[in-house]
Amino acid sequence: MNEIAAQKPKISRASDTTLTRDYYVSPDVFEREVRQVFFKQWSYAGHVSQIPNIGDFFLHSYAGESLIIVRESAENIRAHFNVCRHRGSQLTEAPSGNVKRFVCPYHQWTYELDGRLKRAPMMPDAECIDYEKLSLHMAAVEVWAGMIFINLASQPEQTLIEALGAPPAGLLKLEPERLKEICRDRLLVKANWKTLLENYLECYHCAGSHPELGVAFDIQSSFDQTADWGGTCFLGGEPLRKGLVTVSMTGELVSKPLGRHAEDRTPELEVAEGLGLLPVLTRVLLHIDHAVIHVMNPLSVNEVEWTSYWYVRDDAVEGQDYSVDKVAEVWRATNAEDKQLCERNYKGVLSRTFVPGPLNPRAEGALRPVLDVYLRMMDQ
Amino acid sequence: MNEIAAQKPKISRASDTTLTRDYYVSPDVFEREVRQVFFKQWSYAGHVSQIPNIGDFFLHSYAGESLIIVRESAENIRAHFNVCRHRGSQLTEAPSGNVKRFVCPYHQWTYELDGRLKRAPMMPDAECIDYEKLSLHMAAVEVWAGMIFINLASQPEQTLIEALGAPPAGLLKLEPERLKEICRDRLLVKANWKTLLENYLECYHCAGSHPELGVAFDIQSSFDQTADWGGTCFLGGEPLRKGLVTVSMTGELVSKPLGRHAEDRTPELEVAEGLGLLPVLTRVLLHIDHAVIHVMNPLSVNEVEWTSYWYVRDDAVEGQDYSVDKVAEVWRATNAEDKQLCERNYKGVLSRTFVPGPLNPRAEGALRPVLDVYLRMMDQ
Amino acid sequence: MNEIAAQKPKISRASDTTLTRDYYVSPDVFEREVRQVFFKQWSYAGHVSQIPNIGDFFLHSYAGESLIIVRESAENIRAHFNVCRHRGSQLTEAPSGNVKRFVCPYHQWTYELDGRLKRAPMMPDAECIDYEKLSLHMAAVEVWAGMIFINLASQPEQTLIEALGAPPAGLLKLEPERLKEICRDRLLVKANWKTLLENYLECYHCAGSHPELGVAFDIQSSFDQTADWGGTCFLGGEPLRKGLVTVSMTGELVSKPLGRHAEDRTPELEVAEGLGLLPVLTRVLLHIDHAVIHVMNPLSVNEVEWTSYWYVRDDAVEGQDYSVDKVAEVWRATNAEDKQLCERNYKGVLSRTFVPGPLNPRAEGALRPVLDVYLRMMDQ
Repeated sequence: MNEIAAQKPKISRASDTTLTRDYYVSPDVFEREVRQVFFKQWSYAGHVSQIPNIGDFFLHSYAGESLIIVRESAENIRAHFNVCRHRGSQLTEAPSGNVKRFVCPYHQWTYELDGRLKRAPMMPDAECIDYEKLSLHMAAVEVWAGMIFINLASQPEQTLIEALGAPPAGLLKLEPERLKEICRDRLLVKANWKTLLENYLECYHCAGSHPELGVAFDIQSSFDQTADWGGTCFLGGEPLRKGLVTVSMTGELVSKPLGRHAEDRTPELEVAEGLGLLPVLTRVLLHIDHAVIHVMNPLSVNEVEWTSYWYVRDDAVEGQDYSVDKVAEVWRATNAEDKQLCERNYKGVLSRTFVPGPLNPRAEGALRPVLDVYLRMMDQ
Repeated sequence: MNEIAAQKPKISRASDTTLTRDYYVSPDVFEREVRQVFFKQWSYAGHVSQIPNIGDFFLHSYAGESLIIVRESAENIRAHFNVCRHRGSQLTEAPSGNVKRFVCPYHQWTYELDGRLKRAPMMPDAECIDYEKLSLHMAAVEVWAGMIFINLASQPEQTLIEALGAPPAGLLKLEPERLKEICRDRLLVKANWKTLLENYLECYHCAGSHPELGVAFDIQSSFDQTADWGGTCFLGGEPLRKGLVTVSMTGELVSKPLGRHAEDRTPELEVAEGLGLLPVLTRVLLHIDHAVIHVMNPLSVNEVEWTSYWYVRDDAVEGQDYSVDKVAEVWRATNAEDKQLCERNYKGVLSRTFVPGPLNPRAEGALRPVLDVYLRMMDQ
Repeated sequence: MNEIAAQKPKISRASDTTLTRDYYVSPDVFEREVRQVFFKQWSYAGHVSQIPNIGDFFLHSYAGESLIIVRESAENIRAHFNVCRHRGSQLTEAPSGNVKRFVCPYHQWTYELDGRLKRAPMMPDAECIDYEKLSLHMAAVEVWAGMIFINLASQPEQTLIEALGAPPAGLLKLEPERLKEICRDRLLVKANWKTLLENYLECYHCAGSHPELGVAFDIQSSFDQTADWGGTCFLGGEPLRKGLVTVSMTGELVSKPLGRHAEDRTPELEVAEGLGLLPVLTRVLLHIDHAVIHVMNPLSVNEVEWTSYWYVRDDAVEGQDYSVDKVAEVWRATNAEDKQLCERNYKGVLSRTFVPGPLNPRAEGALRPVLDVYLRMMDQ
């Protein structure tokens, strides 16, 4: 277990607050966050099913960077910064595709799938320049249970597994490597990313604002759950109300049971697995019949992109086993509600009279420990 | 009379100029203005007739702040910053309404009309937190002759009456407390707020640019009038041409005579009362038959919102005693002209070659004294 | 020949690169460029045929400044900053026109065509203010072979002819003073102006990106040509492929031969004359039958306006001697291609991982010498 997680203070107090105004409104703070936080943390980038074949790639935007996530070989996936080593042009603007090599559209510098420079027209290797020193810049990539995670640092301070701590066995039983994406939403939230983070870290607001989520989600249990959050990750999914089996508008299944649970023939089983990466939130939520993954992408001091991916079992058939609208219904509504809550919160934080107030020790217990981890990263 | 007003230099010279370029274009200057000027000065916020009943409120925007102007009791009006003391959420986005209490839409923290925290769910008073220390932040409010003025400082350095100096008796005779609002315009002017202020402080430009205003308004007399302006306020309305009774497109009445003048049965009476608050301009204009109030709201270093409110006697009947178009006609045209003049002026001030030129000692005599008061506030 | 041009390093090396990221993304760098570069360099503003008569004027925008280019007399053209010396208002917003004098629309201050203050209402000369000290601020103007060049400095460090070095005789034979403008395009390129400059300084990208230009333009020869570029200017036009006579979609004439070549009756003559002013690029391209002039106007750190003017012989008749579409076809297509290349390049430069890579010594030989001149101007 990593040192930062180890230092996490487990007890929150009524004297705990969120941060002072500058942390949410200062472009200088944001600039420091890029270096100290966004370029050091693991974050979800996509699912292996998006790039099954060698040469398959997709573009992923994170913290102002464009990354090419590409299958280099049957075993390896790479994340190249989408920046030619010659004059800096983006290599591609295609959201996804399949290539043998990457050819820069500006001067046709050509790179192998693993990022090595293969050819620079009129500039032969060794003779004119040293190709070995001109490979594409890379972010770190780790694939865990079919999920692709990236870290903008080429040499992260901790591996993904170190960041996650003990791997959750129940989660693996749901076989996230055998999912298929059925839809994806992107919301632009006009707020600082930490305002959105704080919103996600507590369910103090849920009863009053999230009727759809509240059907199946057990708000009271969530208070105990979030009390444990902090460090660079947390484990666990959304606790369910007694007798309900998944997070849907009825609490009943909206697709086929996932992974080894398909054989259980016990759809009444309550399953809530998942994990979160912090402080820039990646939230993986696995239910017995579907998965939702939320990823936060800070765009500027007052804008954040919130992407939600929905997945079902790879052999589920639309119209027969599931409908997209039903699978996505709860979190679509919840996301829209959270966007409004966060934007209204942020408007208030912009007031020059804003001072952070006391947090609820029980229901908002996760905020200060996570913010403390953030502050420690910023102070390094 | 306050010290700043007392220090006002009464004589302007041909060597007087406006300010150097930085004052109009630097975001750092604007940031300092927020603290040194916008949070220290009185400004018009609305009329008591907007909130006759206990719990009536309206939102008022000023200098980037959202304020809830609310009738707390028959006697008292409050101006609360629209910022929950918990995590900072705005309490309401409704432009106006009536409430028993303010309930934050985020976590249902509940405040009394006077701003005291009444309830924080799951966070009982004394036990968990001290409610007394968590009242809403307040701006100062003073109601004078039915007009609501605010000062973003909770403890202003001078009261409204101190800022105004001697109360103008003629103005009270027009009974501004018995007005009703008939329309309101908001113009976004793409200029620094001081460019708009300077435009308002002189009528050197009027003959060439304001044909509608020039019908009834006596431009020559205005030169003598503005020579007295300075300090934190000035008194007096728009001087009229001989034989005309109000500022309209004909110089004739456009509504019923106001206040005690209604009994005079002398509509030929020239009446021009009013006052101005400085340097961020509130301009109250009372004519014998209607009132216009202009309020400047600085949004950023290069944007200012100019709001004009038109009022008639509260028992005047539309279609019979007045038509909105006729009452608003002169200042609607004049505002549009001033917006164009100020935006074109500001474009020139953006030139890196701009240096302020000499002011007209007679017709632009008010600019330097008012700018000097501003500079003194900035230097404190 | 001027000292800066004299210092130009003639040999570029494979170790040469473009600049580090800050030069392309920092608003502070841009602010310094205004003072150190944009206010010191000659740049094309228009053609004498636009203002044949005394009092004819047109507005020209450059580096955030609005200039009034006006014919003061048969001999003289002036460039006044469009800023009244009183309060700074722009004097006119008309893109072009004819006036006897300039009258400020704000307070009717009136200026002669040569910029002298003639009248300030209510402010008589000598008595109140000194008119002599209140002439309009001027940029330097030089007309060379019918082309109007401006320098935002009123006293430039070098004259236009000093900046140009030896006047190209072949160019004068084309009589650029006898051109007429047939169309003008403005492109907003979302990139730093130096990204666009670098694109223009090399044809390493041409074969892969400019099929229309490549019909008549001899890319290989251009490599030798650009090797000479640097300093504050370069001379020469676009080299043509053997057997072709002009840059068009066929390499054949698209209008009447220009100047003294009209008498030659040798339309097969390859003519490629021109010049470039640096580092903010003005590029004059003269072919035997038409001219194209490109001018770069930096708007902000990440926006540049690229204007192209097309000209033919002043007595050419549309529909008979030329069609606008055919004359403009090659560079319209090329400009659109360059815009896309530059915007994609700039997106990559915005990456925090961007480091400039090695330049092609043969095909990109002009970049470093020109960037060195720029750096020397910035360091002064």
